[in-house]
Amino acid sequence: MGMRNDLARFPPSASRQQGGGRKNLKDARQALAAGADPSRMWTRPGFLIRRLHQIHYGLFLEECGHSTITPLQFGTLTVLTEHPRGIDIGALAFQMGTDRSNTADVARRLARRGYIKQETARGDRRKVVSRITKEGRTFLKKMEPSMQKSQERLLRPLSSEQRFVLMAAMRVLVRTYNDKGRAKMTKL
Amino acid sequence: MGMRNDLARFPPSASRQQGGGRKNLKDARQALAAGADPSRMWTRPGFLIRRLHQIHYGLFLEECGHSTITPLQFGTLTVLTEHPRGIDIGALAFQMGTDRSNTADVARRLARRGYIKQETARGDRRKVVSRITKEGRTFLKKMEPSMQKSQERLLRPLSSEQRFVLMAAMRVLVRTYNDKGRAKMTKL
Repeated sequence: MGMRNDLARFPPSASRQQGGGRKNLKDARQALAAGADPSRMWTRPGFLIRRLHQIHYGLFLEECGHSTITPLQFGTLTVLTEHPRGIDIGALAFQMGTDRSNTADVARRLARRGYIKQETARGDRRKVVSRITKEGRTFLKKMEPSMQKSQERLLRPLSSEQRFVLMAAMRVLVRTYNDKGRAKMTKL
Repeated sequence: MGMRNDLARFPPSASRQQGGGRKNLKDARQALAAGADPSRMWTRPGFLIRRLHQIHYGLFLEECGHSTITPLQFGTLTVLTEHPRGIDIGALAFQMGTDRSNTADVARRLARRGYIKQETARGDRRKVVSRITKEGRTFLKKMEPSMQKSQERLLRPLSSEQRFVLMAAMRVLVRTYNDKGRAKMTKL
């Protein structure tokens, strides 16, 4: 990885010529076009992951945005199809990897659109159980090809070997650290 | 990838037994512990990327949070060390992969802490040029080991082969789609 040494290996040539901002931007664009990293940020997994998250969000909205659905809402409906008799907010939050308040907020939005129904649990009145409605299923089915297209576009630049390793590696990491990073974040 | 068929392959056995929310959560945890995917969400790159982003954020804050710095602030200081004579907000936004207003906001916070200095560009009064200060450099140097530790912890569960492919694949994707997803997102 050489992450420890990334300070030593940089700055890349593009940034050695300083000057006005315009030149900085041109240098960075040129470095990128030439296949070089515009900054040592590109050696840090956290940076690449944040950018990928933004990019996925952008591609998802390009494909599915006409229906004003977000990836989190789509994911929530997906999880609900796997629990036709309903699932409480805590379990839904676990599945989505979000915190309770964020999860409850997404569920409320979906309920307002008629895609899910929320009821108090029979055995436990403090618990709210969410269930997907017929309208929710119809909507999800209609949107499925657009969602799949956004996922396919995202990985299209990779070879199938790269895709396989990328997906496997991400699953290992999310599995290992599944208890981390559930807090609601308001900023990228 | 089989993404197209993910509806067919699921739901996983864990979710076949429905019932109360508590049971759902237990099922999901058990599936995860047993090495199975708790939901078909785990076959979608977008889901894994969002979770990884959250996880990185969590690990970063565990390692660096005592100094109340965020990954975006740290990254901004990093980019500024590569431009000792200053860089304007547009070029900085390009480097960070964020939009102008978000970038300007992060820069203002860093300026308030004395880590960067902002001045009107000599040749263009509409342009604000940001430069890292001595205090900023000292702070960055002090935080560098903690930042590196967060990056290393993130990838630690992977083999060096997996790390290499993951990093390479992410760079290809960010490079290819670098023009996507710069908009400020207020929600994960």
